[in-house]
Amino acid sequence: MTDSDPLAADLLTWKLTLAYDGTDFRGWQVQPGERTIQGELQSALGRITGEAPLPQGSGRTDAGVHALAQVASFPLRAPIPPENLQRALNRTLPESIRILEANTVPNTFHARHSAVAKTYEYRVRPAKPVCESVCSPFLARYVYAFPWPLDLDKLESAAQLLVGEHDFLSFAASDPDLTARNQSASFTDPDEKPSTIRIIFSSTWTKQAIEGGDLLVYRVRGNGFLHHMVRNLVGTMLDVGRGYRQTEGIPAIFTARARSAAGPTAPARGLFLHSVEYGCDSSR
Amino acid sequence: MTDSDPLAADLLTWKLTLAYDGTDFRGWQVQPGERTIQGELQSALGRITGEAPLPQGSGRTDAGVHALAQVASFPLRAPIPPENLQRALNRTLPESIRILEANTVPNTFHARHSAVAKTYEYRVRPAKPVCESVCSPFLARYVYAFPWPLDLDKLESAAQLLVGEHDFLSFAASDPDLTARNQSASFTDPDEKPSTIRIIFSSTWTKQAIEGGDLLVYRVRGNGFLHHMVRNLVGTMLDVGRGYRQTEGIPAIFTARARSAAGPTAPARGLFLHSVEYGCDSSR
Repeated sequence: MTDSDPLAADLLTWKLTLAYDGTDFRGWQVQPGERTIQGELQSALGRITGEAPLPQGSGRTDAGVHALAQVASFPLRAPIPPENLQRALNRTLPESIRILEANTVPNTFHARHSAVAKTYEYRVRPAKPVCESVCSPFLARYVYAFPWPLDLDKLESAAQLLVGEHDFLSFAASDPDLTARNQSASFTDPDEKPSTIRIIFSSTWTKQAIEGGDLLVYRVRGNGFLHHMVRNLVGTMLDVGRGYRQTEGIPAIFTARARSAAGPTAPARGLFLHSVEYGCDSSR
Repeated sequence: MTDSDPLAADLLTWKLTLAYDGTDFRGWQVQPGERTIQGELQSALGRITGEAPLPQGSGRTDAGVHALAQVASFPLRAPIPPENLQRALNRTLPESIRILEANTVPNTFHARHSAVAKTYEYRVRPAKPVCESVCSPFLARYVYAFPWPLDLDKLESAAQLLVGEHDFLSFAASDPDLTARNQSASFTDPDEKPSTIRIIFSSTWTKQAIEGGDLLVYRVRGNGFLHHMVRNLVGTMLDVGRGYRQTEGIPAIFTARARSAAGPTAPARGLFLHSVEYGCDSSR
């Protein structure tokens, strides 16, 4: 869609909210010969409307990462009632991708540029103190079965140190191309030099009782996240929670500005994009 | 293992209790070139002990059917502590198969022949009365998303009519070879003519609240089940629950002794082998 498109005035902007089980996809972003969420969505839209716009996500989730409420936007010429588009997409898409909501929104809306905050959740099943933990086969796709016991107080103290404005370079994927990848709502000008500074609004661990043990759930809300940032934050906090690293060492990781200063990248399977927030004026 | 095996005295009989997500397997029974639960278990035992006995299950689950607590038995020569075998199997097997318990038992124990009762569970997500239901992508592998609303009272009245001793031929897979397949604890002599009479001890539907709606769960406990019997009972009860068939017609289905008299086969994804019971003397 460009300004010179004579039919631009007929285009409606759509906002979709969708959930997916990321296990069997090569992530969000369309890739030739690979099964991706964006690719499945584009092809379903093509089959339903004859148009195949590339839906823009609020951010790109990696292979194996799940979403409880990802947001995507795209233009469509076809005048189709929102409930009908939702129903047709849910009939056409694989059952591991579900459209929770479909709306038309003002043309200024963009799933990534308009986002003001995002929340991620990470689910960990710690080993029991004594015997080896047996993780339910029905959780295996959605939980990181951590091989050591974890101290919730230590996890929580580390999580608190992440709140606020920080340079998260040490927690970003070390591949410079990936690090610069615009995963964030905090810069909307493509010419702007990518910053690795982000603001974390909240960062907490909670315990949930499940069959046969406890699930530890980390929830983090911020104005944007660098590539691999949540998984690297979790990997570092798990080092603290198992007693391998001290909470007090976290500030030094920020100042190091080096990926090697932080802990390992936690596996994709435990990560869920929980929700995306938009300003009152831009969401519809 | 035969009576003439000179080392038979050294063989220990093992009982494993295991859970699995059946989605990515071609069922329990080993098949050349296919990924099956029995095949994965046999190959893991071979890698760990150098012996590769074929584990006997309490029954064969079909492709896509899950288990919360399937039981398998097999002989092993290697003297290995039970906790060690459990741990080694859980390290070797795919995460979608988990060993919950491993024990040595008297040589008279056989996972199928010694079973006195089995319980299955079937999970259905009905459509909401008004709008189209959106089934969570995280439930899609484990729940049958039924396209119509369901009346729980009607389901429950149909379920009650199944309790007791009946000839379940109308609810068995119509393939005569499959029907005769010994899925049951009720005949242990291979020369005995297979009977299609089974006793159902209990048969109930319950409602469980989940995110975005209700899950209807059918639980059935009996002395044995014919091939496809639970899925055909569920398919028939769902016909009643949506108002397409009358509860009063159920007794006539038993007397018809014809597969065509009953309802459709409900999909494998909703079915779980819940548990297997053994007599006090044979379980260990």
